[in-house]
Amino acid sequence: MDALIALCKRRGFIFHSSEIYGGVNGFFDYGPLGVEMRKNIKDAWWRDMVHRREDMVGLDCSIIMHPNVWKASGHVEGFSDPMVDCKVSKNRYRADQLFWGAVIVDGETIGYVSMLESEKMQALADADADKLKRKAQKQGTLAPVVLKDYTEASPDLYEKIPSPSTGQPGSLTPPRDFNLMFETHIGALRDESSVAYLRPETAQGIFANFKNVIDTTRVKLPFGIAQIGKAFRNEITPRNYIFRSREFEQMEIEYFIAPDADWKGLHRKWLDTCIAWLVSIGIPANRISEYAHPKEKLAFYSQGTTDLMFEFPFGVQELWGVACRGDYDLKQHATHSGKALDYFDEASKSKFLPHVIEPSLGVDRTFLALLTSAYQEEPITDEKGNTEIRTVLHLHPRIAPYKAAVFPLVKNKPEIVAKARELHAKLQRRWNVFYDESAAIGKRYRRQDEIGTPFGITVDFETIEKDNCVTIRDRDTLAQIRIPISEVSAWLDEKIDG
Amino acid sequence: MDALIALCKRRGFIFHSSEIYGGVNGFFDYGPLGVEMRKNIKDAWWRDMVHRREDMVGLDCSIIMHPNVWKASGHVEGFSDPMVDCKVSKNRYRADQLFWGAVIVDGETIGYVSMLESEKMQALADADADKLKRKAQKQGTLAPVVLKDYTEASPDLYEKIPSPSTGQPGSLTPPRDFNLMFETHIGALRDESSVAYLRPETAQGIFANFKNVIDTTRVKLPFGIAQIGKAFRNEITPRNYIFRSREFEQMEIEYFIAPDADWKGLHRKWLDTCIAWLVSIGIPANRISEYAHPKEKLAFYSQGTTDLMFEFPFGVQELWGVACRGDYDLKQHATHSGKALDYFDEASKSKFLPHVIEPSLGVDRTFLALLTSAYQEEPITDEKGNTEIRTVLHLHPRIAPYKAAVFPLVKNKPEIVAKARELHAKLQRRWNVFYDESAAIGKRYRRQDEIGTPFGITVDFETIEKDNCVTIRDRDTLAQIRIPISEVSAWLDEKIDG
Repeated sequence: MDALIALCKRRGFIFHSSEIYGGVNGFFDYGPLGVEMRKNIKDAWWRDMVHRREDMVGLDCSIIMHPNVWKASGHVEGFSDPMVDCKVSKNRYRADQLFWGAVIVDGETIGYVSMLESEKMQALADADADKLKRKAQKQGTLAPVVLKDYTEASPDLYEKIPSPSTGQPGSLTPPRDFNLMFETHIGALRDESSVAYLRPETAQGIFANFKNVIDTTRVKLPFGIAQIGKAFRNEITPRNYIFRSREFEQMEIEYFIAPDADWKGLHRKWLDTCIAWLVSIGIPANRISEYAHPKEKLAFYSQGTTDLMFEFPFGVQELWGVACRGDYDLKQHATHSGKALDYFDEASKSKFLPHVIEPSLGVDRTFLALLTSAYQEEPITDEKGNTEIRTVLHLHPRIAPYKAAVFPLVKNKPEIVAKARELHAKLQRRWNVFYDESAAIGKRYRRQDEIGTPFGITVDFETIEKDNCVTIRDRDTLAQIRIPISEVSAWLDEKIDG
Repeated sequence: MDALIALCKRRGFIFHSSEIYGGVNGFFDYGPLGVEMRKNIKDAWWRDMVHRREDMVGLDCSIIMHPNVWKASGHVEGFSDPMVDCKVSKNRYRADQLFWGAVIVDGETIGYVSMLESEKMQALADADADKLKRKAQKQGTLAPVVLKDYTEASPDLYEKIPSPSTGQPGSLTPPRDFNLMFETHIGALRDESSVAYLRPETAQGIFANFKNVIDTTRVKLPFGIAQIGKAFRNEITPRNYIFRSREFEQMEIEYFIAPDADWKGLHRKWLDTCIAWLVSIGIPANRISEYAHPKEKLAFYSQGTTDLMFEFPFGVQELWGVACRGDYDLKQHATHSGKALDYFDEASKSKFLPHVIEPSLGVDRTFLALLTSAYQEEPITDEKGNTEIRTVLHLHPRIAPYKAAVFPLVKNKPEIVAKARELHAKLQRRWNVFYDESAAIGKRYRRQDEIGTPFGITVDFETIEKDNCVTIRDRDTLAQIRIPISEVSAWLDEKIDG
C-alpha cells in the first residue's frame, strides 16, 4: 500500500487536497493521470450500464437539494455516528472507534484502560493494564483485558473510563449522535429556514425525480435510473487513503421493479451483473466476495442487502452494495411531498409504487481496487540477461490513463520522428496517447509500465526504409508484434473496447 | 425562451431541482436527455482541449479545499455582492439590482421612488413619480426619473429611498458586503477553526496543484492545466434559467506562459481557439461577440480580460471569459502557503513564476447557448403537400443526446424488427442510440427532431428482401440516403467526429 501511495503521488495519480497548505483531512485531488483513469472508470460504467442497456436512463441532479429530501429519506434524523468528547483535551472521537476494558486482578476490577482502535490495541491494552496494576501496587494475576467499544459501555462507566488524550478518567462525555451531512445555508440569511445539506448520497435525487423521469420518457418496468456524481460525508475519522474520504463520487442505480416481481432473482442477477462488470474492467474475480447482511441488522423496510467485498491491502471491505429497499423511499417522498409517485402499469391498468433494487458503487473505491489489483513489482530479464525489478500497473486498456505510447526509435532521424508524430496525431484524435522520444527505448517502456500504458508503439528504421510497419509491445506479456501503420487504429480499437 | 423551457421539461432535458418539494431557487437537475447532452459537451471539450493537444494536462480537485486557498485567492475578503436589507419586511436585495430615482417637480425634489431592476422599470418609475406628485398635490412639470442603482446612492439618501417591499422610506439599510461562497464546517466542531467553503470556481485548485503537476509530469512552458467540475455561488438572485444558478459546472484552463512571452498574441490565439471550438460544436459565429473589459474596471493585477459574449434570448451575456492574470495567483499562493511555486526553465537555467491566461467556460451556459442556437419551429411539407410546424433542435451530432434512432418500418414483420434490433445493438456498443417501433414513421421522425437526434435509420422491406441497405434520414435537410447496413457504423463515425 505504501509503495502504491508513493507511486500515485510520484506519477500524478492522486495528491492530498490543498497539499501546499498542509492538506485537509479526507479530501483528495486527482492529478493528470488520475483524472484520466477516473474518467475511464465512469465512462466504462456509463456505457455498460446506461448506453448499452435498453432498460436504463441517466440523470444528473444537483448536489444541494431541498432540505425536505433529507427529512423524507431519514438522513436528517438518522444519518449519524455516535461521538464522544473529552472535556479536558477538547478532542472528539467516534465512539465505535474508542475502545476500553476493565483491568482485573484476581477477579477484582482495579480500573480501566482506553485507546483508539488499531491493530495492536490488544497489546497496548494489556501493557497499560500491567502499568496500572504496578502503579496500584497490586499483587495477583492480571486477566487479559477484554476490549469493547465505547457504545457498549454502561452509563456508570463514562466517568471511570480514561480519556485516550489525557490517560485520566472523568472527562469523557456519553456518546452523542453527530450528523454526517455537511450543512450550509442558501441565500443571505443564516437561520433554520435556510439550512441545506450537501447530499450524502446520489440515490435520493433519483427518487425525487422519479415522477419527472416516468413523465418524460417511455420507460416501462423493470427499468433503472443511473447517476454518477459527487457526495459528501463529514466523517469523523476518514481513513484508508481514498477508501473512506469526506468527498467522494458515486455511481448509483435505482432499478425499479413491480411489487410482485421476483426480487430475489433480480437481486441475484444484479449481483452477477456487477461482478461481471468488475471483472471486465480488470478486477480479479478471486478478490471479490459476497457478504449478505444478516436479517437482524437490516433496516425494517429492507428486504435484503448483499455487499460485494474486495480484498483491499488493509482488509476485506465493501466495494459495491446491492440493496433491496422495497418501496420505502418512494413512499417516504410521496408522503413528505404530498405528490403521487405512482407508476401506471399499462398491462394491468393499475397504479402502484414500484419496489427498488439499488446497486451502489463508489468511483474512488473502484479506483483503489483497480490500482491495488494492477500494481506489481516484477523481475524481468532483458536480452543481455540482466534482471531488474520493474514496477507495473496491469490496468485494463479501457481503464489505463494512456491507451498507448508512440516512440520514434531514435530522435535524431527526422523521417522516423515525423512518422511517429504523424501516427501519434492520428491516434490522439480518438484516444489519450502519449508521445515520448527521450532516453533509451527500454527506459521509455519502463516509464509507461509504471503508469499502466498497455501498448508501446515504436517507429524504427525498418518502418521508413522497408515495411511501413510498427512494433507494438505488450505491457503484460512483453511480446512484440509487427503490424502495418494503417492497421494500428483498428487494432487498438479491438484491444480497448473489443 | 418559454417554448424552449417547456420543451426541456417535457422531454427530460432540465428539471427544477427537488421539484416535488416546490423546488429550490437556483438549482437544476438534468434529466435523461440533459445528462447525455452535458456529458457530450464535457467530453468534446476534454477531447479537444486536453487529449488532442500536447501542451495540456487535466486535473480533478476536490470541491472543498483548505480555507486558506480562498484567503490567498482573495475570495474570503472580496468575493461579495453589496446587499441591502429592508428592516420592516425583512426582505433582502442586491444593491445593484435595486433602482431608485428622485421625483423632481419644477426643479424641486419632492421625494424618491424605488423598484427592482426590470425591463419596464423606467415606465414604472415615471408612473410612481406621477402618483407621488399627485399625492403631494404639487403643480408643475414632472421631470423624467433618472434611475440609478442603490450602490450609487449617497449615505444621506438611505433614509429617504422607499423600500420596494413597503413603498415607505426609512427601512433600508446601507449596502453591506455579502460573501457569495457557501460555507460549511469540516469535522464535528462548528467554530471558526472548522470553517470551509464550497469552491466558487475550479481555477484555484489548479494553482494550488501547480507544483504537483510540474513535479509529476514533463510539461514545459507554455502549457495548460484543464479542469471540469462543479462550483457554487450563493447568488442572491439567481436568474435566467440555468444561466446564473447557484450550483453550476465549469470548464477552466490555466495556460501558463513565460513572463516575457507575447501575452497579447497568446491571448488573441486563445480567443480564436475558443471561438473556433464553439463554432465546431454548433454555435453560430454571428451570435458570438467580444467584449474587452475597459482598463479602469480591471483588477490591479490583470493585464486584460476579454469575454466572448453570446446572444441569449434575454440579452447579450458572457459565455466564455479569457483573462490574462499575470503571476498574481501563483504569487498569492506562494506567499500564503510559504511554498516556492517557481518553474525551472531548462533552457535559460532560471527560475520564475509563470504568467497565466485563463479561459473559463460554464457547462450550463454552453448548454443553454447550444439549445437556444439549435431550437427552431419550422414549417415542413410532407409528400401529400400538407404543411405542419415541426419543432426541431439542430444540435451538432457530437452534442445530440442520441446520435441516431433506429426504426423498423413496421413492427409486425419479425424479419424487419430483428434486423433493426441487430443494427441497434451494434451501434449501441459505441454510441447512445434510440430504438423506436411505435407509431407511423413520420411521427417517429418528429419525436427525434424535437430532441435533436441527427439521423433516423430505417429498416424496411427492401432491406430484408433486396439490398441489405437502410435509409438514413437527415434531421436538418430531410434528405434521405440509402447505404449498406455494414457501412452505417463508419458513416456515423465520420458524421459525428470526422
